Amino acid sequence: MSAKQTSLPTTKQPYLLRNREGTQVLIGTQLVTVIASAASSGGLFELVSISGCLGDSFPAHRHNRAHEGIYVLEGRVEVTLGSERYLLTAGDYAHIPAGTVHAYTLRSHNARLLSLTSKGEVGKLYAHVGMATDLHVHPPQNEAVDLSALLAEPIAGVDVELVAATAVGEAQLVTNVTVPDAVVPYVIASGGGTHLIAGRDLYIFLAANANTDGEFLVLDNLGPAGNAIIQHLHEKHTETFLCTAGQMTMWCNGEEYRMHPGDFLHVPAGTIHSFRMDAHYTRFFSVLSPGIFEPFFHTLGTPYAGYIFPVEPGPARFDRLMQKVQAGELDLKIVGPPPDGSGGPGGPGGPPSGH
Amino acid sequence: MSAKQTSLPTTKQPYLLRNREGTQVLIGTQLVTVIASAASSGGLFELVSISGCLGDSFPAHRHNRAHEGIYVLEGRVEVTLGSERYLLTAGDYAHIPAGTVHAYTLRSHNARLLSLTSKGEVGKLYAHVGMATDLHVHPPQNEAVDLSALLAEPIAGVDVELVAATAVGEAQLVTNVTVPDAVVPYVIASGGGTHLIAGRDLYIFLAANANTDGEFLVLDNLGPAGNAIIQHLHEKHTETFLCTAGQMTMWCNGEEYRMHPGDFLHVPAGTIHSFRMDAHYTRFFSVLSPGIFEPFFHTLGTPYAGYIFPVEPGPARFDRLMQKVQAGELDLKIVGPPPDGSGGPGGPGGPPSGH
Repeated sequence: MSAKQTSLPTTKQPYLLRNREGTQVLIGTQLVTVIASAASSGGLFELVSISGCLGDSFPAHRHNRAHEGIYVLEGRVEVTLGSERYLLTAGDYAHIPAGTVHAYTLRSHNARLLSLTSKGEVGKLYAHVGMATDLHVHPPQNEAVDLSALLAEPIAGVDVELVAATAVGEAQLVTNVTVPDAVVPYVIASGGGTHLIAGRDLYIFLAANANTDGEFLVLDNLGPAGNAIIQHLHEKHTETFLCTAGQMTMWCNGEEYRMHPGDFLHVPAGTIHSFRMDAHYTRFFSVLSPGIFEPFFHTLGTPYAGYIFPVEPGPARFDRLMQKVQAGELDLKIVGPPPDGSGGPGGPGGPPSGH
Repeated sequence: MSAKQTSLPTTKQPYLLRNREGTQVLIGTQLVTVIASAASSGGLFELVSISGCLGDSFPAHRHNRAHEGIYVLEGRVEVTLGSERYLLTAGDYAHIPAGTVHAYTLRSHNARLLSLTSKGEVGKLYAHVGMATDLHVHPPQNEAVDLSALLAEPIAGVDVELVAATAVGEAQLVTNVTVPDAVVPYVIASGGGTHLIAGRDLYIFLAANANTDGEFLVLDNLGPAGNAIIQHLHEKHTETFLCTAGQMTMWCNGEEYRMHPGDFLHVPAGTIHSFRMDAHYTRFFSVLSPGIFEPFFHTLGTPYAGYIFPVEPGPARFDRLMQKVQAGELDLKIVGPPPDGSGGPGGPGGPPSGH
């Protein structure tokens, strides 16, 4: 297995997609780009990006089995969660457990969001209501699509149920920064979440096992340019990397990739991988599924009160990590040294990163 | 002159700065990165990026000679313009003519804005109130700085006057998309502005000569991957390119640069240059000073009603362009063919762009 694949594969394997690449479906002026399908993730999750014109929307519906996360990549997106209405801006996250009535409306020109759903039973809806396309960006106009009519009847094997809208009142800007400790709907402002520091790298949980019944973790990751981490693999869970700011290098089964905002790497169980942040301010959005790797972040990381990484490195608890790795308590198999020849995070420098 | 210079030079010349590079000044937890100084622009303009923590702010003040433009790169920024209070999100623009009382407050964690001022008489204020630093990202905490106290007395040769705040009421989200026809304060929502189409490329004026007394133009540029444009130079005006989405290649006096979000290229008069958009959705923010090149965009471009580029190419009026170039009516000297060996925009393809 290598990650030479650079279009969406039909079987579970490592693959790289560049910004706005995947499998595309057009629904009116909304472009849905499938970044991870039930097939490519082995049924663990589906990840799509959706972009469109001001006012484009998806009517109130619920998933009866799938948990969902919405992360805004560009512009403003109004998201209805039960009886609440929120205005999300880029970097904000909404968590939508199974059963929650939700809807969205794009509130700026060319807004773009990520939608993550668990279990692999939602994505087929897009092909059902839209048309395959080779466009990589939403068009300025198109024939309108009546999603409410198309979704009025249940679709066999698709976990989407159209329901009456329940929200009232004005949309509120997202300011909350705290992740609750239960499977409930919530929103998190960009930069917020549960912060852990390891050196100068910030791990920020947007959703943990307590929010997803253990189905997935969602993290926002933030750091300065640094060294590559050790080459490792996971035997039981998939990890994904979607660069949202700056630049990073990823190594994946012997291939090396320079990643920029919007680029996505799928790293299923068994894939040898490493990464390095290369820009002064690098950020990536990651999904891990199932959520068994949550203890890793609390082991290497330490709770942190800031919203940006510190000037001086914080603790990086490799001592605790090695203990747990040796005890076989983490889904982490160390395979080799950092692939850039560096001493790893906090160690002596590897090759100059540059651009 | 080449653009080999990759830190802020002290004389007017071509130069490239990577994302978050420049000359840095720390004011409390706000990091000011000078991207173009009075010296590097030859006194035409100054361009700084400012990032900081939620709540960081700059008190009400005015410039008595300089016109200013603020463009939000990340997060939410509240901008006061006279008696109005606006909440800008990424991609929104505020235009602040000389004499307008204005202020800002960062309304998200790690928000970041660009501030452009004309005439080169504002930038010295940052060194006056802050400390030189080698940080490339704002720190999570620092000793507070009382800007009102530091700016209470006029600073010799700096066009900043502290004034009483004048705004009242709640901040309004920016929805306006129309550029007025006068030197007045205004805001423009991301994607809005005066749209002109040339092929599939969108030129979007955020500020034109009518808004700046001819001192500068501000454009938002949007397009899909395409061919490089002809190699050319301007004899009388400076052009700058700041990539905000996707990827582009720039050629500048024989050097070739791959540019990603946040990267900036300064192209003063006399510099031979060309560019190519390389990603499905590429966007760049540009400042041209003085504003004498405005007729170019109306010559090659055609008014366009959409907010995203079309699927099928619109008109590209090379016929009108060549007529004006031959008549010597534009500050445009064609120097050579597209540097990628392509037939130029709309022509047969150049080398595959890839990543």
